[in-house]
Amino acid sequence: MDVVTYIEAHKARFFADLKEWLAIPSVSGNPAHAGDVRRSAAWLAEYLTGLGFPTVEVWETGGLPAVFAEWPAASPDAPAVVIYGHHDVQPVEPLEEWDTDPFVPTEKGDALYGRGASDDKGQVFFHTLGVRAGMAAAGADAPPVTIKLLVEGEEESGSVHFAELLRARRDRLACDAIVISDTTMWSAEFPSMCTGMRGLAEAELALHGPSGDLHSGSFGGAVPNPLQGMATMLAALHDDQGRVTLPGFYDDVVALTDEERALFAKLPFDEAEWLRTAGDSQAAYGEAGYSTLERVWARPTAEINGMWGGHTGPGTKTIVPRSAHAKLSFRLVAGQDPVKVQEQLTAWVAANTPPGLRAEVSVPGGGVRPCFSPIDSAGVKAARRAMERAFGTEVLFTREGGSGPEADLADILGAPLIFVAVGLDDDRIHAPNEKVEMPLLLKGAEAAAYLWDELATALR
Amino acid sequence: MDVVTYIEAHKARFFADLKEWLAIPSVSGNPAHAGDVRRSAAWLAEYLTGLGFPTVEVWETGGLPAVFAEWPAASPDAPAVVIYGHHDVQPVEPLEEWDTDPFVPTEKGDALYGRGASDDKGQVFFHTLGVRAGMAAAGADAPPVTIKLLVEGEEESGSVHFAELLRARRDRLACDAIVISDTTMWSAEFPSMCTGMRGLAEAELALHGPSGDLHSGSFGGAVPNPLQGMATMLAALHDDQGRVTLPGFYDDVVALTDEERALFAKLPFDEAEWLRTAGDSQAAYGEAGYSTLERVWARPTAEINGMWGGHTGPGTKTIVPRSAHAKLSFRLVAGQDPVKVQEQLTAWVAANTPPGLRAEVSVPGGGVRPCFSPIDSAGVKAARRAMERAFGTEVLFTREGGSGPEADLADILGAPLIFVAVGLDDDRIHAPNEKVEMPLLLKGAEAAAYLWDELATALR
Ligand SMILES: [Zn+2]
Ligand SMILES: [Zn+2]
Repeated sequence: MDVVTYIEAHKARFFADLKEWLAIPSVSGNPAHAGDVRRSAAWLAEYLTGLGFPTVEVWETGGLPAVFAEWPAASPDAPAVVIYGHHDVQPVEPLEEWDTDPFVPTEKGDALYGRGASDDKGQVFFHTLGVRAGMAAAGADAPPVTIKLLVEGEEESGSVHFAELLRARRDRLACDAIVISDTTMWSAEFPSMCTGMRGLAEAELALHGPSGDLHSGSFGGAVPNPLQGMATMLAALHDDQGRVTLPGFYDDVVALTDEERALFAKLPFDEAEWLRTAGDSQAAYGEAGYSTLERVWARPTAEINGMWGGHTGPGTKTIVPRSAHAKLSFRLVAGQDPVKVQEQLTAWVAANTPPGLRAEVSVPGGGVRPCFSPIDSAGVKAARRAMERAFGTEVLFTREGGSGPEADLADILGAPLIFVAVGLDDDRIHAPNEKVEMPLLLKGAEAAAYLWDELATALR
Repeated sequence: MDVVTYIEAHKARFFADLKEWLAIPSVSGNPAHAGDVRRSAAWLAEYLTGLGFPTVEVWETGGLPAVFAEWPAASPDAPAVVIYGHHDVQPVEPLEEWDTDPFVPTEKGDALYGRGASDDKGQVFFHTLGVRAGMAAAGADAPPVTIKLLVEGEEESGSVHFAELLRARRDRLACDAIVISDTTMWSAEFPSMCTGMRGLAEAELALHGPSGDLHSGSFGGAVPNPLQGMATMLAALHDDQGRVTLPGFYDDVVALTDEERALFAKLPFDEAEWLRTAGDSQAAYGEAGYSTLERVWARPTAEINGMWGGHTGPGTKTIVPRSAHAKLSFRLVAGQDPVKVQEQLTAWVAANTPPGLRAEVSVPGGGVRPCFSPIDSAGVKAARRAMERAFGTEVLFTREGGSGPEADLADILGAPLIFVAVGLDDDRIHAPNEKVEMPLLLKGAEAAAYLWDELATALR
């Protein structure tokens, strides 16, 4: 029985089982649903046991539990692969904007509606069908690589205990590659794989001048104005090529390869349409020498998220204000470290504060590290072949934002990332009426069935 | 009887009368005190009549009344001079910070405490003594110039009906010079005259980008950020010499003369002490090539009074904000027109708005015109001689802020301004515990007594 025939034969049961899981409201961000998240973990553990996974464990954390399941390869020399996904879901509010009950999974045409259908229960689930289809097609009772499925329960509430869990279970999770199934493709017609997620560094900048607001009639034009200082500093944060001016900012950036740029360029990107989705923005803007997709996916940026100071209410008040404030964030790409960028900002502020003003930089946390999956790695090439076999067309590449645990997985487990996913941007994850395209979940299962053979060869 | 003897002989009665007037709480900014402002006008009119002014009238306006009194010169060829002051006063709140009742005038040493003692009843009042001292010393029953005393009742509430009153009464107010007695001197030891008041143009600038806040992970670095645009524009509003970059901004500015700069430089200005009063500012800043006093008195400026946009609350929010806002004000000097400056700003904004953003400039009103009293005019020279005779020392020059009706007086009556006043910066006008130095009021009366002779000669 080949992979496609196996999947075809088991799809009805596959969707019936998925619906049972989707009916559990495992909202990790709402403490009232903690019991449901535990129920979701227990349901998955029982399900995986029923499928034949030799090892299935519920792993407790300081918060909500993850599920771990391992299916060892027949050969002890075979590579090991961690599959990462999550079984918790986003809150459903505003409930009145849902056309169907978010926890009564409902089919409409090819789409299956329900919270978690795409993000991320559906995408975890295609692996459970894929691994069996692969073994059935091979006539084997074990997969060609050791599969270690790790399904987190706190991704939608910040993965607060996840790094700790990875460190504690590092030996059990030893692997040669990490397959992440929690992203999207460009479209059903243009399947693609993610090659990286931008990270984030945040900071708040304050400039202090006089001890209190001054009357500008008496003092204006003769003492430094913190708002003018702030404007001057923030204007200097970019040069006239749209590049960030922090010394060292680009030093660690892994440059886009010509090949990846060429593959990005193959995507049917409609800039006018994209500008419409960007709140009807009137023009693209950004770092010179890069396309819009390159700018949002693969180039680091500095943004002013908020700025305030002086008189901001109705009417006029002719003052030299005592202080000025700005909230800044930096999107980071492969190679950059948020802590290092925060240090670069602090040094730059110290060197560029206008005379007579006192600057203060505060950082709200360590930021999010970017993650990266180079398209010329053996694992990505193998996964791309598996995807192309399933979809029957060239698979392209994209990148994404994301503040997920991917960088922790790569760093703590010390293995390369491979993104295999079949979600779509219009699946409305994190929004009302989340859905998944059922034919794409089956394509995902098919790609997953081919994936282990491909990886067994590529990673050996 | 010479001037000094006359003043000495009448000073007890002078202060007793002034205290009676000061006891009337003529707070024009508080509608509850409208009756008191009217009572103050009536009191003054009766007082001036009692002194012998041949014409005394209470002039109604759309708001609170002014008092007009005329004492014609003996000779029909003599020049006419308007004396401007006001009989309304600032509110007294916070009352608990007064050491004495603001409307129970109280002597302590040389100082007389009470609301209006310096601003401006005391300074109007010294003229009533001065004109009589001058006539007594000359043995005349009319002054050497036609005196037209105009005492406004709405100065502390914005002089809203004053320009209208001036236009309506232009014929009655025809004059060759206007003496303003509503300012201050450098100090008792360094008497001085004001030579100009800065004007004001205000504007609000908005920059609009996307129709709503965008997620900076998806759009940051690829569409224009209104806050970055605002920083860039406002940073460009000054050049690296601290000069305002609006094209044409300095075209109409009447330059400081070497003589006025030299006289400013004679003032015992302590910059370190001034910085302490400027909210402990850590450094002076401003237009290159000018001293601090020149910057605050005689050079135009641009200030950012407020700026806001995006996320300004606690925590972080990684957005590209939909808009950015700033409140701007420009201090203007002799020759500049606020409406023209607002037009220059509007044109500059149109020419400098970053691509993809939409700018909006709104102006809250027509602004305040600057006023100017050149030190080489015949009137100022004459008044300086009168001041030097009274004070027995060199009289220097200063300028001031001020949003008063001086520009309207000069423009509508078509006559030059001469500032003769004896208030001090530490008189705490507009604050609790306002006071006036009684010896200085007598010096003011003495200067006023000499003034009419000097002006009669100078303006003939
Ligand atoms: Zn997810
Ligand atoms: Zn005044």
